[in-house]
Amino acid sequence: MILDDDDDPVLDAHHRFYAAFAGGDVEAMDTLWARRAPVTCAHPGAPWIFGRASVMRSWRKVFAGGGPDVVPDEPAIFHGDEMAYTIGTELIGDAKLAVTNIYIHEDGEWRLTHHQAGPIAPPPETPPRVLN
Amino acid sequence: MILDDDDDPVLDAHHRFYAAFAGGDVEAMDTLWARRAPVTCAHPGAPWIFGRASVMRSWRKVFAGGGPDVVPDEPAIFHGDEMAYTIGTELIGDAKLAVTNIYIHEDGEWRLTHHQAGPIAPPPETPPRVLN
Repeated sequence: MILDDDDDPVLDAHHRFYAAFAGGDVEAMDTLWARRAPVTCAHPGAPWIFGRASVMRSWRKVFAGGGPDVVPDEPAIFHGDEMAYTIGTELIGDAKLAVTNIYIHEDGEWRLTHHQAGPIAPPPETPPRVLN
Repeated sequence: MILDDDDDPVLDAHHRFYAAFAGGDVEAMDTLWARRAPVTCAHPGAPWIFGRASVMRSWRKVFAGGGPDVVPDEPAIFHGDEMAYTIGTELIGDAKLAVTNIYIHEDGEWRLTHHQAGPIAPPPETPPRVLN
């Protein structure tokens, strides 16, 4: 099922993720991730990070220079009863990234267990048109 | 829950995915993807592909030159009752990729709904040691 309802609690979690991300807010980011379910993360071009402490350390590094200039699009949402995910695209400066976020329903809240952001290569330059 | 049991049906689906991938087997790949749940896919460096027909067309393109030289590692598996996912790394030639696969339980089978493969940048070269 694809939902695009603003009242969707997974979409709400997704929006809070990007608010924490853009704000460089480590504490807000920390509250969004699962407490007991195992968590995994891959930042663009980087290998997998396994485990909550390591994932949070990686966000502190991402936020070291302040909140990044990140602009997400509205994602597609795929909904199960216990697990859900969003598929979206984000811009960080000139970089365009394909993003998967996975959420689990834990303690009555939708919490992140997984984030993968992978670079989308810019389209090849259009060859110059030969006019004559 | 992380499982690494060879009898795990999600791991089995994951192995069949890589057998189809390495074999360039469009028909086997087709059987592995969900029939009714919406499907999404991002190949390395490429934007999202939405919808079963488009995703299968993309695999036919990937397989156009025969099965790619793809070597997966053993993934970590995250298991729900209806949805599960694997986190792994694959090598295609010299390229190293971080891969998320998401599976849904449909008609008594675990079927792919999502695949994202994103490039992992090579680590920076070690600067030459100065010996004297």
